[in-house]
Amino acid sequence: MRTVVTPLAEIDSPALVVDLDVMEANLASMAALTGAHGIDLWPNIKGHKIPALAWRQLRAGAAGVTCQKLAEAEVMVDAGVADVLVAVQVIGAYKVERLRRLARRARLITVVDSWEGAQAISDSFARSDQKIEAFLEIDIGYHRCGVSAADALGLARRISELSGLKLVGVMGYEGHLYDLKGEAAVLAEARRSYDLLVGVSDSLQSAGIDAPRVSVGASSGVEAAVEVTGITEVRAGSYLMNDRSQIAMGSADTARCAATILATVISVPAATRAVIDAGAKALTATAISGIDGYGTLVGHDEAVLERLSDEHGMIATTGRNRFRVGDRVQVIPNSHTVVFNQFAVVYMVRKGEVEAVLPVAARGMMQ
Amino acid sequence: MRTVVTPLAEIDSPALVVDLDVMEANLASMAALTGAHGIDLWPNIKGHKIPALAWRQLRAGAAGVTCQKLAEAEVMVDAGVADVLVAVQVIGAYKVERLRRLARRARLITVVDSWEGAQAISDSFARSDQKIEAFLEIDIGYHRCGVSAADALGLARRISELSGLKLVGVMGYEGHLYDLKGEAAVLAEARRSYDLLVGVSDSLQSAGIDAPRVSVGASSGVEAAVEVTGITEVRAGSYLMNDRSQIAMGSADTARCAATILATVISVPAATRAVIDAGAKALTATAISGIDGYGTLVGHDEAVLERLSDEHGMIATTGRNRFRVGDRVQVIPNSHTVVFNQFAVVYMVRKGEVEAVLPVAARGMMQ
Repeated sequence: MRTVVTPLAEIDSPALVVDLDVMEANLASMAALTGAHGIDLWPNIKGHKIPALAWRQLRAGAAGVTCQKLAEAEVMVDAGVADVLVAVQVIGAYKVERLRRLARRARLITVVDSWEGAQAISDSFARSDQKIEAFLEIDIGYHRCGVSAADALGLARRISELSGLKLVGVMGYEGHLYDLKGEAAVLAEARRSYDLLVGVSDSLQSAGIDAPRVSVGASSGVEAAVEVTGITEVRAGSYLMNDRSQIAMGSADTARCAATILATVISVPAATRAVIDAGAKALTATAISGIDGYGTLVGHDEAVLERLSDEHGMIATTGRNRFRVGDRVQVIPNSHTVVFNQFAVVYMVRKGEVEAVLPVAARGMMQ
Repeated sequence: MRTVVTPLAEIDSPALVVDLDVMEANLASMAALTGAHGIDLWPNIKGHKIPALAWRQLRAGAAGVTCQKLAEAEVMVDAGVADVLVAVQVIGAYKVERLRRLARRARLITVVDSWEGAQAISDSFARSDQKIEAFLEIDIGYHRCGVSAADALGLARRISELSGLKLVGVMGYEGHLYDLKGEAAVLAEARRSYDLLVGVSDSLQSAGIDAPRVSVGASSGVEAAVEVTGITEVRAGSYLMNDRSQIAMGSADTARCAATILATVISVPAATRAVIDAGAKALTATAISGIDGYGTLVGHDEAVLERLSDEHGMIATTGRNRFRVGDRVQVIPNSHTVVFNQFAVVYMVRKGEVEAVLPVAARGMMQ
C-alpha cells in the first residue's frame, strides 16, 4: 500500500520546517562527542519545546533535560520525563510552591545565585519534609545571573547549611560566546570561562563542601568543555537544530541547520527587492553583531534578508533578481530558539515529505 | 456583595498587562480625532489580535477592521466582524481559495500590487461569480510592498479590466516614519508621503478609473492624515496601546502606554546589575534606532534594560541599584505588536485590579 504523504510544496506559508535527516545527524554527533568523553548531556529544550524531541534526546543517551522556565519543566514532566533541571532562578512564593509540587512528580534540580532565593526555596521544601538539589550559578563572563567567583565560596557556605536545599555543584552560562566570531575565538574564550568555573568548584571542594558537579551550557562551547578536566555535564541545546548564530560562532554550517522557515514571495515591487510573508513575528528581529540580515536565504547567495517588519521580510538582491511572486524560499533564522516559540506546530520533513506535524507543546510557557 | 477581584500583585510573571483606563482614553481620542475630520477608521488589529478589543474599536465608531494575515481575518470573521480589510498580498492558490471562501461570510477588501497577484485572485472569484474589492498598494516611501507611483496608473488600468476584482482605491504604508524621531519630523514626512499617494489617486481619477478611496496606515501619521485633502481612511492600530516606538516618534508619552510586561527581579548579582524574568521571548529583541534598551522600566529612571537573552532581561543601573530579588517591575516594550503575539492571555487591569483575562485569539496566526 502506498503511504499517503504531504509534499513540502503543499504546506502553506509561513511554516516552521525541520529536516529530520539533518536533525538526526546532529543528535548522533553530540551524543557521540559527549559519550566519548564521559560527559553527561542535559540538553536544554528551550530551543524546541517539544516533548517528542526531548524524548529523542533522552533515548540518544541524555541524562535528563534542562528547562529555562518552570512552565516548560511542567510540560516535560507531564510528558513523562523523570529528570529535569530547572536552570533558572525560581523566585516568588507562587513559583516556589509550583516547584515544590512538581518535585513530587519527578527528580528536579534547580539553580540559585542569592541567599534570599535559596532560603525561600529551602524553607518551602523543608516545611513539607522535602529537599531539592541545586546548583550554585557562577558568573563566568556573560554578566547575566550568577554570583561572582570571588563571592561564590561565601554564599556556598551559607547555602550548604540549609535543610531543604542540597547544593550539588556549580553551574555557568557562557552566553558571551555569542559575541565572538569563529571557532578558534569561541573555543579559547570557552576554555577560559570553564577554567574559572572549575576553579570555583575546586575551592568549594577544598572548603569541605561536597558539591562536585560542574555544569556548563552552550553548544558552541562543547568542543572545549569535553577537554577541560572537572566539567561533569553540559546543557547544550542549539546543536539539535543549529541556526545562523551557531554558524557565526563556527560551531555549525548551513548543511547542519535543521530548522528553516518556509516562506512565500508575495511582492517583487522593484528591480532589487522582493518581499516574503515572514517578518519579525516568524523569524524574530534578533540581530547578529557584525553580520547583515535576519536569516540565510537557502540557495540565494545573491540576496540578503535585509529588513523585517512584523509580518514582512524585505530581501535586497545584489545580483540578478531571480524572485517571482509566488516563489517559495527557505530561511535559516538568526536564532531558532525564539522562532520555535512563535509557531503552533512544526512540520518534520524527510526528503521533501512531511513525516510528522508536532505541536510546540511548551510554546508560550512564559511563567 | 463585594466583587471578587485579583490584585495585580497576585498575577505570576512574566505577564502581559493592559491598563484599561489608559486604553479607553486612547480609544476615545482616536475616535474623536478621525470623527471630527470625517475620516474612516479601519484599525489594524495585528497589535492586539483580540476580538473583544476589535469590537471595542468598532463600537467606538470604526468602519471595519484591518488584518495583516488572512488567518487573523478568519478569527475576526468568526468573532462576528462584518467588514474586514485583508491588508496584505494574498498569494498562492491555497490562500486565494481561503480568501474566496471567507468572502462568502463577510464584506472583505484586500490589496494587490502585482498583475500576477491581482489576476489570480480575480480568476478565482470570477469562476464562482464572486467579486472582491481591492486597493492598489503604492510604495509611498517605506520600500516594502507597493507598486511605484510611476508604474501605478499602468497597473491600475490593467487591473480595472479584471472581472473578479474591483479596484476601490489606493493604499500606502508609511513604515519609514519609524526611522524618524520626534513629532515634527514624523508629521512632515507623513505629509509628503500622503501627498504622493493622493497624487496617484488623482491620476487614476483623471484617467477615468473610479477608485476614490485613499487609505494610509500608521498611528503616528494620523495627525497629518486628517489635514491632507483626499485621504478617506486610516488603518491606525498602535494608538490603542502605544509603546516605546510611538514615544520615539512623538506620537505618545509614557502615560499613554496601556500595555506593559509585568516582570520579576530574579537576580541582583552585581552593584550595577539586576536581572528580570522577561527576555526576547516576552519583550522582543526589536531595537529602536538611536535609543538604548529594550523597554522602559516604569518608575526606574536610573535604570536601562540594556540586554536581552531569550528568557532574561539585563538591567544596568546608572544611579543607586534599588532592585531587590523578588521585586516586581513593569516594562513598556519597544514594540507591543510583537509582544501580543507571544502571550497566550492578556490581563486587563483597572486601578490595580484584574477586570478580565482575554485570550489572544489570533496569536500565532501566521498564515
